[in-house]
Parts: sequence; structure tokens; C-alpha cells
Amino acid sequence: MTPPVANSFHEMWEELRPLGRDSSSGGYRRFAWTGADGDCRAWFRAQAEARGLAYELDRNGNQWAWLGATTYRDVAPGEAVVTGSHLDSVPDGGAFDGPLGVVSSFAALDELRRRGAEFGRPLAVVNFGDEEGARFGLACVGSRLAAGALTPEAAHRLRDGDGVTLPQAMERAGYDPEAIGPDPERLAAIGAFVELHVEQGRALDLSGDPVGIASAIWPHGRWRFDFRGEANHAGTTRLEDRRDPMLSYAATVLAAREQARLAGALATFGKISVEPNGVNAIPSLVRGWLDARAAGQDSLDTVITGIEQAAAERAARDGVELSVVRESFTPVVEFQHALRDELGAILGKERERPVPVLGTGAGHDAGILSGTVPTAMLFVRNPTGVSHSPAEAATEDDCVAGVTALADVLEGLACR
Amino acid sequence: MTPPVANSFHEMWEELRPLGRDSSSGGYRRFAWTGADGDCRAWFRAQAEARGLAYELDRNGNQWAWLGATTYRDVAPGEAVVTGSHLDSVPDGGAFDGPLGVVSSFAALDELRRRGAEFGRPLAVVNFGDEEGARFGLACVGSRLAAGALTPEAAHRLRDGDGVTLPQAMERAGYDPEAIGPDPERLAAIGAFVELHVEQGRALDLSGDPVGIASAIWPHGRWRFDFRGEANHAGTTRLEDRRDPMLSYAATVLAAREQARLAGALATFGKISVEPNGVNAIPSLVRGWLDARAAGQDSLDTVITGIEQAAAERAARDGVELSVVRESFTPVVEFQHALRDELGAILGKERERPVPVLGTGAGHDAGILSGTVPTAMLFVRNPTGVSHSPAEAATEDDCVAGVTALADVLEGLACR
Repeated sequence: MTPPVANSFHEMWEELRPLGRDSSSGGYRRFAWTGADGDCRAWFRAQAEARGLAYELDRNGNQWAWLGATTYRDVAPGEAVVTGSHLDSVPDGGAFDGPLGVVSSFAALDELRRRGAEFGRPLAVVNFGDEEGARFGLACVGSRLAAGALTPEAAHRLRDGDGVTLPQAMERAGYDPEAIGPDPERLAAIGAFVELHVEQGRALDLSGDPVGIASAIWPHGRWRFDFRGEANHAGTTRLEDRRDPMLSYAATVLAAREQARLAGALATFGKISVEPNGVNAIPSLVRGWLDARAAGQDSLDTVITGIEQAAAERAARDGVELSVVRESFTPVVEFQHALRDELGAILGKERERPVPVLGTGAGHDAGILSGTVPTAMLFVRNPTGVSHSPAEAATEDDCVAGVTALADVLEGLACR
Repeated sequence: MTPPVANSFHEMWEELRPLGRDSSSGGYRRFAWTGADGDCRAWFRAQAEARGLAYELDRNGNQWAWLGATTYRDVAPGEAVVTGSHLDSVPDGGAFDGPLGVVSSFAALDELRRRGAEFGRPLAVVNFGDEEGARFGLACVGSRLAAGALTPEAAHRLRDGDGVTLPQAMERAGYDPEAIGPDPERLAAIGAFVELHVEQGRALDLSGDPVGIASAIWPHGRWRFDFRGEANHAGTTRLEDRRDPMLSYAATVLAAREQARLAGALATFGKISVEPNGVNAIPSLVRGWLDARAAGQDSLDTVITGIEQAAAERAARDGVELSVVRESFTPVVEFQHALRDELGAILGKERERPVPVLGTGAGHDAGILSGTVPTAMLFVRNPTGVSHSPAEAATEDDCVAGVTALADVLEGLACR
């Protein structure tokens, strides 16, 4: 007997909850190719097998659980309907970012079986590897490799904070790093990919809706600001003889906030590296990383230009040299309008009002795949709006609403 | 035959120059109880023995080279005249901070012998251990232990960045950490301690004097500012929902500069620690260390109060919790007026104009000892004014002027 949706979800959620959890912070440390990640991956495989789904590991370490096929090779181009997300986490991440999508995918399958749905298309649940990039500094490695957006050569050069390379880490975890690379035929088999994700902001909380549909991922990027001054003794160097890059950095942090506020955008300095980083030493180098995102490219350009200008002005005043490097950039991702409208139509049928459509500033595997595969996302309400922290939240009622919505969508797409 | 002062100085300087030098930065990494430190200490002992001085290692790892005695036990209270400094360095420190004082001490002895001086009092050259505190985070460990300003228990708890304790480090370097502790009889034997040091600012350069006398060490301290906010996703959290401690920190850095400027004081944020320090994460914690110094206690109090107030106001605005802890503090050190005046009189004799008397913001072993021993300092001109950096400088002419001045002082104090 297949359990009803709430039971099915609850049981899986409780199994996954202790894996990779740090008892002191209450947050998760499920970093790619570590023991905690391995535990999550073993859980995924066990869930697939318990449901009689065909388990398949792809060349990039992404896990697949197939219904109505045993591998993508069985599937005609564009026939498969795929859902899923990721199981890895940022340092001290919350329980929902990633796992909610994977658990909801299995629970939605359970729900469809309970409904007695007849599947007209092959269906798969996927767990993408290394989505957060917490260990090697690059997000969405599994989906990027599959889509050809990251070359195997570049992936082989990735190193974690301890100097372990990605190939070494994969090998130690029992995977073959020589196999990684683009997987175009697999992606060609997918006619629709739907990723369910906890919302990473408060739009649904403010609108009072448990579930929403993604419109687009904002253009976003990372810029590194290097402020170079002159190391000197903090206790003896006159203020007028200093070239203190911490001052230029501080002014730039405040300018970033101001520029973002003016443009209705987001700008954050969350990472810093200081040399020599001594209490009684004026720094020789302050390196700050800016994360910036906006609803449109023009608005993002305005924000970046404004911040760079403020930084350059203050650096000149402080006798500090400034260099700015764009380390990564992702243009706006508009999810396919046809699929998005189809989801809206499916979900609008038995609901009192239209499901809201909202943009997001966060990157996702769905964003990576959207270049080659028709892709959509569902968001589940997060009452705290907090993300990448143990304070991230979703009520069990909202999670069940998410599973039901995902089941409706899969039924609409795969059972016609 | 004893060489003339310039040769004696030059030869020692060249011997010491390569020890612990980082060839890429050109700076020194002579950290307490490391191999580089051991090389410097072996050099000190060899210099003592080459001059027929009695070498003595004290219980705290400070090195002594005696003329007219073999140990402090031979010396009546208040009889010894001692000169010296330290040989360890900050990370990528300059060549002069510390070593100039030790080399000048030996060179001044050579000069006195060349002059045929007759010593009426025992004389010693000292090398204090771990003055910079670069490894264990506390400055002047050797002199603090001797003066009872640091207990052996507290010293035993010191750890370096790799978790190695001070006792472990001493033991590995061949010293007995169980022996450390106060050395009051040794200090009681000292009637005058004179430390020669490269100037760590540009006062002598601006006044056009090669040598100066210290008046006082400014009161100075370290304050730790903990700004606690809420970790959150930099790409999805609305500005108005953030509690971003980096903003409060940045505003405080700028406020510190402004308060210091208004008070004619020094205030520096040179060290920072951020959690989780991720590019796409609003920090949960930004910890910044403030180094602040002023000519007087009132002025320092005004600066600190002003910075704390600005930090508290901005933190409240950012929804950030602030706590401020004073981690260390040294009240003003006025060097003994009688000894300072005596130095001024000695040095004034054969010079065209009075030797300038100047304050300093930097701590020194001389400052630690001044509580129990009559203490004075000589400064040698530093044309760059730079300190704790390879750009620290002194011309060889000025170094020789420093040696000559120190020889004059020692002759005046010990040969009457």
C-alpha cells in the first residue's frame, strides 16, 4: 500500500534529517564527496530501489531514478519528464535548500501512484552533485559538467580549502574523475525538467501563497576588489603617512549597500581576505568579494558601475591601488515561457486563485539546464525568508502543498 | 685589534641579514622558538663568546652577555648597566626592528674598548625572547615573564595558529618551559637599561636628526568588536530583511579613522575574522580588532568612546548585536626622567644641538621593564617612517651615529 502524501514525505524527511547535521550549530555540512554527502547519496539510491525505480549514476556523479525506463538510452529525444534537485549544502546550511526538492520528487511519485496515474512518458528523479559549490568554490558542478558549461579540464583544476583537487575527492569517494564531461544525449532525452525548491526570500510569505512558479533567475555575478596599500605599524604611523586599504574597503562596502538600495537590487560583501591581518599592522592588502544581482542587466550594470566608481574615488583618496576582477557572471535566465504557462494552467485548475510567478536572485541547476532543456521551477513558502542558514524554514503543511503541486504538474506533463 | 665602529657594525649586520629572510617578500619571519629564531640566538651567543663576554641564558629564554660579571648573581643591586633589544620579527618584518638594538649594543661595546674605556660597573647586552608576539599573539613575553607581568600559568596557555602551545614550542627548541617565571633579583641588579631602536615613524626624519631619546610610550590597547547579525543568502534576501554585520563593521572602520583624526591619535582596524566568509552569504559574525593609541589617557578615552558610540548606533540601525571587549591595555609609560635627562646631558655634550626627545606609540621590552628598572630608549632615524615591513629603513651613517650615541651613553653611565 502506498502511503498518503503527508506520511510519505514525513518518513523520508525524518530519515534524511540527521545526515551531515552539525549538532552545535543545528546546520548542515553536506559538502560534495565527503562522508555526509555519501550518506545522502546512499539514501537516494535506497529510496529509488525501495520504489522499484531503476537507479542510474551518470558520468558526472549525478544520481537518477527512472520510472518507465532504466537509463536515458531507453528514452526518445524530449520524451522524459524529470524532477529533482540536490542534497549537498553550504556550511551550516538549512535542511530545505536542495533536499526539499528531492524528497518532494519521490513523495510526488508516491502520490501519483496513489492516484493510480497512468504514465505516458518516462519519468526520472535526479540528485545533482555539488550544487552549492561549498567545497570547491564553483556552484552547480554536476549540472554544469553535464551541460558542457564547465570543461573536464577546468573541473580537474578545482581545489578545496585543504588543497584536495576535485578528481582526488571524487576518487576517494569511489567515483571515476576521468569519466566526467558533457552528457548531451542524456539532456536531449529530457522534455521537461521541473525543480522544486524552498523559497529563499519572503515573496510567498508576503503574498500568502504556499507555492509559486519561477519566472526568471536574475543576472548575477561575483567581483573581486583588491585594495593594495602599504603595510605599516599601526602604533607609530601618522594618519597622514598611511595608505590604509581597510578604509577604502569600508567605504566600498557602504557604497555597495547604497547603490543596491537606489536600484532595487542586491549587493553584498560577505567574504574578505586581509594581509597580513595583524592587530597592530596597517594592512598591505584587503581583498573583498562583491556578490551583486538585479532584476535586469541594465540595473545590474548601474549598480556595479556605481560601486566601482565609489571604490576608485575612495582608493585614490587613501593612496590605495584598486583592481576589480569579475570572477563569474551569469546572465538573466528566463525559464521557458511555454512550460511556465503550462505549469500555471495545471496548477490554476483546482486552486482558488492563480499561483504567483516570481523571480529569484539565486542560481540553481535548473538555471544551468535551461539553456538546453525546457525547465521550470516551483517554490515553497519560507516563512523566515532566511536561506543558507539553519533558520531556513517551511511548515509541513506547505511542504505537503508543494508535493501535491509537483504531483499535479508531473501528472499534467507525463500522464496525458 | 678592535675594529672601528662602522666595520664592527657592518660585519655583524651582514652576518645577521640572511637569517630568517623570506626571499620572495624580502621580509623577515623570525618567530619565537622557530629555526630562524634559533639561528639568530646562536648568532647572539657566538658574538658574546667572540668578545670574551660571559654568556648566560635566563629562566625565560632571554640571552645575556656579561662584561665584568658572569651572571647577575655577581652584581650588587642596581649596579649593572644593560643594553639590548630583541631579534625576533613580525611576519615579513623589516631588518631593523629589534636587531638594530642588539647589533648596536655589541658594536658600542667594541667602540668603548677601542676608546680604551675603563668600566666601573658591570655591563650586559641582552636579547629578549619573543618581543613581537607574532607567533603566540602576546608581545614582550620574555620581559613580561621576567617582570612578573605575565604569569607562567597564563604563558603556558598561549597557543600559536597551528595549536602548538608555548611550552611545546620552547621544549622543541631545547628550552625548559617549566623554568619560566618572574626573575626579580636579576632585574634588581640592573641600575639602568637602555634600548636602542629604529624609529617607527618620521619624527627624526622631519626634524633632521639621526638620533633621538624617548620620552614616553603612549597608552595603547586592543579592542575586539564582535558584530553579530544573521547569516543569509546574499542573492535572495531583501535589503530590508537583512541583519548584515559587515555594514556595521565598515561604518565603524570609518568612524575610527575620523575619531583618531579629531583627537590627533591613532586608531586602526588591521585584523578581521568573518563567519561564514562566503561570497554569497551575508555574514553571521564580523569580528574586527581595533588598535588605538594616543599621547594621553584622556585623549585615548575620547577616541574609544567615540568609536564605540558610532559602532553601537550603526549596529542598532543594521539590527546587529555589538559587543566590545578590551583584550589588552598598557597605560602610558613615562621613561624615568632622571635617566632620560642624564642621556640628554651625555649626548648634548659634543653635539651641535640638543638631541630631540620624542614619544612613541609602539610597545617595547623597555616599556615592560620600566615599571621596575630605570629605563631609557634611543631612536635611530627611519627615512621611510615605515615599520613592521621590509620598507623599514635606516642609513648606515645613521646606524653608526646610533652606535656612537649608545657608546657615549654607556661610557657616561658605566665608566665614571
